[in-house]
Amino acid sequence: MSTSVNIVRSERVAHFEQDVWSIFTPLALECQAVNLGQGFMNFPPPDFVIEAGREALLRNDCNQYSHPMGRPRLRNALAKSYGPLFERTLDPNTEIVVTAGANEGIFSIFAGYLDQGSEVILMEPFFDQYISNITMNGGVPVYCPIRPKGDTSKDMSASEWKVDIQELESKITPRSKIIVLNTPHNPIGKIFSREELEEIGALATKYNLLIISDEVYDRLHFDPKKHERIATLKGLWERTITVGSGGKTFGTTGWRVGWLIGPKALIEPALAAHTRVVFCVNSPLQEAIAIGFEQAEGHGFFGSQVSAYEHKRDKLLSVFKELGLPCTIPEGSYFILVNMEKVQVPQDYVFPELLNSRAKDFKTCYWLTKEIGVCAIPPTEFYSKPNRELAEKFARFAFCKTNETLEAAAERLMKLKPYIKK
Amino acid sequence: MSTSVNIVRSERVAHFEQDVWSIFTPLALECQAVNLGQGFMNFPPPDFVIEAGREALLRNDCNQYSHPMGRPRLRNALAKSYGPLFERTLDPNTEIVVTAGANEGIFSIFAGYLDQGSEVILMEPFFDQYISNITMNGGVPVYCPIRPKGDTSKDMSASEWKVDIQELESKITPRSKIIVLNTPHNPIGKIFSREELEEIGALATKYNLLIISDEVYDRLHFDPKKHERIATLKGLWERTITVGSGGKTFGTTGWRVGWLIGPKALIEPALAAHTRVVFCVNSPLQEAIAIGFEQAEGHGFFGSQVSAYEHKRDKLLSVFKELGLPCTIPEGSYFILVNMEKVQVPQDYVFPELLNSRAKDFKTCYWLTKEIGVCAIPPTEFYSKPNRELAEKFARFAFCKTNETLEAAAERLMKLKPYIKK
Repeated sequence: MSTSVNIVRSERVAHFEQDVWSIFTPLALECQAVNLGQGFMNFPPPDFVIEAGREALLRNDCNQYSHPMGRPRLRNALAKSYGPLFERTLDPNTEIVVTAGANEGIFSIFAGYLDQGSEVILMEPFFDQYISNITMNGGVPVYCPIRPKGDTSKDMSASEWKVDIQELESKITPRSKIIVLNTPHNPIGKIFSREELEEIGALATKYNLLIISDEVYDRLHFDPKKHERIATLKGLWERTITVGSGGKTFGTTGWRVGWLIGPKALIEPALAAHTRVVFCVNSPLQEAIAIGFEQAEGHGFFGSQVSAYEHKRDKLLSVFKELGLPCTIPEGSYFILVNMEKVQVPQDYVFPELLNSRAKDFKTCYWLTKEIGVCAIPPTEFYSKPNRELAEKFARFAFCKTNETLEAAAERLMKLKPYIKK
Repeated sequence: MSTSVNIVRSERVAHFEQDVWSIFTPLALECQAVNLGQGFMNFPPPDFVIEAGREALLRNDCNQYSHPMGRPRLRNALAKSYGPLFERTLDPNTEIVVTAGANEGIFSIFAGYLDQGSEVILMEPFFDQYISNITMNGGVPVYCPIRPKGDTSKDMSASEWKVDIQELESKITPRSKIIVLNTPHNPIGKIFSREELEEIGALATKYNLLIISDEVYDRLHFDPKKHERIATLKGLWERTITVGSGGKTFGTTGWRVGWLIGPKALIEPALAAHTRVVFCVNSPLQEAIAIGFEQAEGHGFFGSQVSAYEHKRDKLLSVFKELGLPCTIPEGSYFILVNMEKVQVPQDYVFPELLNSRAKDFKTCYWLTKEIGVCAIPPTEFYSKPNRELAEKFARFAFCKTNETLEAAAERLMKLKPYIKK
């Protein structure tokens, strides 16, 4: 057998740690655990969106290159759907770019703005891909935690997780270029209030920062909470790029259609990068998402989707209530943070070596997946190392799953009872 | 009206020139020119591939995230189809990565290997996206021309375009890390011979370079020429990543499904970057391409596709023969380089200002699009500035078009006759 030669990888990728998904997704499969880990839907997207995709495949213009900015039909549909939400007329020819999922959109913003040493302010917990997307483009992530201000030994609202605005300001330096906001928030389920957004926006204005507002869960907010957009606040449209996701909006995480919305001058550098990274986004599924937006209202889709998720959230919350495990009750997105402190994992339990360098929640979630048969995600993955202690008592459960799956999870989670400290 | 704030774009994207596509694609539309410019098919992909996509959309696992490496079914299909062509058993779990088009695959290789100042040897003409994909990752492109060694005032075979191996070696420095090969070649239509590949491979071995072999047109080679793969030569599998394209293979340029094939150790850094840039590739169209490979042989697809392209090539060549314009006769891909020297564009013709900084072929192609009604692409876009004079007498015509389109182009091209010098 031949061996391959030694060609050294770039510094850029040399320090990547194994990600949480490549540990827990195979583990869940191997243990046949009920997977409440990764946030994909195990139920189908709405029929009208699927049918739109099937029709698009029959039209040849939908099978060839799209414009790098995205298909005109999708940009028009986005402008029409989002215009009222942004309280302005959106120009589909200059203010919207369709990206290969929200992830590639965010990568392309960083590529379009960061130079070696540019700093990006992140609130913890953060979506894990942000970090590599920043460092691959020469940037430096700077962290500020969102802390639970309520009593975590009881159920609490996600709104009780707060960022300290003085602490946030203290992270800003002359090298700061971008601040990233995520609302509705993964994994907290917090929807930032107008007042909180005003404070963050004021800092961005004071220090001339670009705001990336990752709003991929914008259609998933639970009564009575409404989603607020930082780009609608006075003077903030001009410095904000808002990120959206077809996958989260229509339950099609595998279609890889996302978008950026913002003023022409801010969008251009991201578009320049995006055009070079992927050239354009897959055409037939762009067309299907366009038709999805055109028809959503007629089908009462967004409202009924929210109701379905509220039902799923409540179903899962009732399980943890029965177990006496305190939860952060989400206002949006589809995750519940559960305080697992009372769960007593047997002291002699043997963990695989790759968990040695990880925080306690990796062990709790590993044991839960393997022995209880329900997979959850350890949230310290979404924290910088120095702040991991803030999260190691929690586990993240996704409820974007069929009711049958949630019921199967409930049944298995009852096996936790003997391990729960009174 | 509010104006947007000044947030400076990154160095990385600041120097991008306007690309040839965003000049000529809108121009062709505006003039209602017959578009032989951009290399997309204006005929549909085969029915069995479309039907596979339509079926995939009905299965929910095909609508959610795929594994970052790609869907197992597609990796298995690629291993089975490409194994014999690479003369080895390919491991679908370690030696194949599915990418969001070949473009993102190439970007991710550069991201996985280049550090600030790393040099990449390119042969000119090159696919234009290579340059930004290299520079965005801190790399430096170094150019070596492929020169027409025959008499360009007559028809010549694409095989008569040659790279001088001493000249190529002279471009290598201690900072050289990668050499990029493109065969079948866009825009020349050259298929590198086994001897040429051996020489290039020997240089790569001598200087320990990674070889990126961009073989996106690998299924489009014209009788009697066969496609040769550098990765099959002795000792070269170990240092080669081969790039393929579902878009070119099945006529679905808008599906954005490509792949990388190479030894595990070489693939890993590219996979690490790819996982962070896009996370994964759209699922339903991956499934459709998998089924495409599974069924291609049963439909006799690759053979009949080649015959159809040979017919199209000959149809377009006969037009230039009638006009007395010498051609480079392609051995593969779907482009013809035509020597336009004899075409006399009226001396008083007024060109838009944005063409002032461009070579003569931009003007010829502009006039051809606007006044003759046929769009072709100026090949100096695919050259570094110092070497543009090598290409300014040519124009690139794509023949991946319906026979009706080629006939319409033929009719319009006859209007060139009064402008052609005897």
